[in-house]
Amino acid sequence: MTVHDANPPGDVRMRGFLRRHTVDDALAWLDAHLPARRDESVPLTRAAGRVVSADIVSDVDVPGFDRATMDGYAVVADSTSGAAPYNRLPLTVVGEALPAQPFAGAVAAGAAVRIMTGAPMPAGADAVLPAEWADASAAADDRLVAAVAPVTPGKHVGRAGEDVRRGAVLVAAGRALRPQDLGLLSSAGVSELRVWRRPRVRLVVTGNELMPAGSKPSAHRLADANGPMLAALVERDGGVADFPGLVPDDPAAIGVALHASADVVIVSGGSSVGVEDHAPALVARDGELAVHGVAMRPSSPTGLGRIGDRLVFLLPGNPVSCLCGYDFFAGRAIRALGGRPTAWPYQSIEARLARKISSPIGRLDYARVRLVDGAVEPLAVGGASILSSTTRADGFVIIPADSEGFAAGAEVKIWLYG
Amino acid sequence: MTVHDANPPGDVRMRGFLRRHTVDDALAWLDAHLPARRDESVPLTRAAGRVVSADIVSDVDVPGFDRATMDGYAVVADSTSGAAPYNRLPLTVVGEALPAQPFAGAVAAGAAVRIMTGAPMPAGADAVLPAEWADASAAADDRLVAAVAPVTPGKHVGRAGEDVRRGAVLVAAGRALRPQDLGLLSSAGVSELRVWRRPRVRLVVTGNELMPAGSKPSAHRLADANGPMLAALVERDGGVADFPGLVPDDPAAIGVALHASADVVIVSGGSSVGVEDHAPALVARDGELAVHGVAMRPSSPTGLGRIGDRLVFLLPGNPVSCLCGYDFFAGRAIRALGGRPTAWPYQSIEARLARKISSPIGRLDYARVRLVDGAVEPLAVGGASILSSTTRADGFVIIPADSEGFAAGAEVKIWLYG
Repeated sequence: MTVHDANPPGDVRMRGFLRRHTVDDALAWLDAHLPARRDESVPLTRAAGRVVSADIVSDVDVPGFDRATMDGYAVVADSTSGAAPYNRLPLTVVGEALPAQPFAGAVAAGAAVRIMTGAPMPAGADAVLPAEWADASAAADDRLVAAVAPVTPGKHVGRAGEDVRRGAVLVAAGRALRPQDLGLLSSAGVSELRVWRRPRVRLVVTGNELMPAGSKPSAHRLADANGPMLAALVERDGGVADFPGLVPDDPAAIGVALHASADVVIVSGGSSVGVEDHAPALVARDGELAVHGVAMRPSSPTGLGRIGDRLVFLLPGNPVSCLCGYDFFAGRAIRALGGRPTAWPYQSIEARLARKISSPIGRLDYARVRLVDGAVEPLAVGGASILSSTTRADGFVIIPADSEGFAAGAEVKIWLYG
Repeated sequence: MTVHDANPPGDVRMRGFLRRHTVDDALAWLDAHLPARRDESVPLTRAAGRVVSADIVSDVDVPGFDRATMDGYAVVADSTSGAAPYNRLPLTVVGEALPAQPFAGAVAAGAAVRIMTGAPMPAGADAVLPAEWADASAAADDRLVAAVAPVTPGKHVGRAGEDVRRGAVLVAAGRALRPQDLGLLSSAGVSELRVWRRPRVRLVVTGNELMPAGSKPSAHRLADANGPMLAALVERDGGVADFPGLVPDDPAAIGVALHASADVVIVSGGSSVGVEDHAPALVARDGELAVHGVAMRPSSPTGLGRIGDRLVFLLPGNPVSCLCGYDFFAGRAIRALGGRPTAWPYQSIEARLARKISSPIGRLDYARVRLVDGAVEPLAVGGASILSSTTRADGFVIIPADSEGFAAGAEVKIWLYG
């Protein structure tokens, strides 16, 4: 068959959607059909922000030895008992311990080893007298120092294993690695670790009216907005975007792109019911078109399906619809495949509406808003093609399908783009 | 001179700090001595997250032409006046307009041009009758279609310039580019743009006790935690980390590293008052050591200065101090140099303390805390060497220098690491 034939069953081209799925139904299908995650090994130095796929357990104590945690003198604490500025207790300096250069001997009562932070504690010593509490200036002999304050046993000594015990979990599964996590893993000698593989996302941006990003728009053609936007969204959500260039509004070309090597395929444009909207029929032909048409605005001509192991998202070409459809569906899948929380990566705050927002029952609305003096101002914008509405907006408000909207003065949740 | 000479004036080695600067003083010096920012040109495709250095103005209208915003039929709106399911108004289909393939003729009353979303509006037509409101099924002749609902002039037509007008600001200076900003810039034909240059940050990680990240810690040596942690912090804050490897605790080697080609130099380790703490004297010798010793805990042996145009941060080698000192001082400078907000890149929330936190007057404290059932639990941790305290913590609470701490039950601000 070719999709140029008369409308096959399920083909909605030029007839409109028979019914629209609810957003909740679409999300439920998506969550039930996420492919299995896969993990991979990465070097520690390239693991920042990656998500750990299994608990990482330490096979060493950190530190592996008792060490000084201040600069000063390793002593037997008892030797300083009662020391004060008016009761200077002399100590004999018998040597020096530097980091990685331990003092070979032992420390007896009345003796001291000059020690640096991080140096191994000498045998016999049980405390470090900080440099500030030791007066070396009065002695003619630099082997003498006076304690002017006491230290108790264990003072300024870091014990072996005090940071991490052998067998302890360094980082638990599911953690997106923070800078300090990398430091801790490194200190335990971890050089490679298992993280969730970043999902590969093929971007299929269609539209014969489009010129590649970087082109000047002309009399009857637009420069592609969705390709650069989707690539940045995918990267934000932990995916790896593969965007080899625009694809013509041609069933053969789109069909090939739908079979690209990828975990997720996102098609922008040609998702609706026009004669040039080939992608829905192609997905239905080669796999499963589970959702086509969603009761939301914008993005109602969104489709969800799969071909083989690939999840396929059909997003409208209008850039606001594309952004909204990405955020509701594709981004969620990409985050989940990479082991990240499925929730939006936007902060939300509560604020009062300056003007009412209306929305019909049965349809979820995505309203771009600005924060003006702490109040939420809906943007008066035309349609889903006005991408500048999302760059002028501070964020968006969702009006659920079961709501007719919010009255002026209502407290609403705003999701912040920035 | 060499720094091995007897203590020169201002050298605090083995004597302790004479006085400590307040955090506010140190920040004031830093803010007053930030080098001038520089901008650079980057391709749009690599601009995600970069900070725009000057307003970007559109030199085109977007779109550059009137276009259909729905699939359907371009018509003279008057021809549909009164149309209804029981008052089907016939229209003669005279042609087709596809994206980038305009209809060459004009549309008169009673005529229609089959049109796709995004296609240029034909001359004469002033509205688009959506496919859903046009019934083509009853006509034997595919050049006939019946309007079953009316449209008003301008309906489903996107006007030239409705998204962006020539001369309008696409993205204002200071904006960290969001995915939709890239889309909008692309749609206006912007292929290169000016952004603040990412500051180059040389990491000078010293410590003879250290082995490079990836090594197994041994009997008297540690694996480097600070290098991987600082590299990730610098990248998080928009800088480019240059970390060629560990530097020995040797004045000559540190001296060379301090003169590296960079906007910022961060030295970790050897910042305090021990005999092996060379960096402060080297900064004072070759430039200005403006701050050395800060009334905070951890990180009190922190130094701030400059050598030539380079800002130099001397951070303690203890990893918690290193993290804290980075966040207070170095991160702020790196963000500022890259045009980003100087505020911490951490979210904060207010919550109640489960147990009191004490802190002496005159010293700012950085307390690692966990959130347990919504309450803030201070972590009972040893010293600044326990990096796992920062990986087990959900965040931290700052106790200002003028506070003795917070009572149990007090509402405090917690900065969240994650």
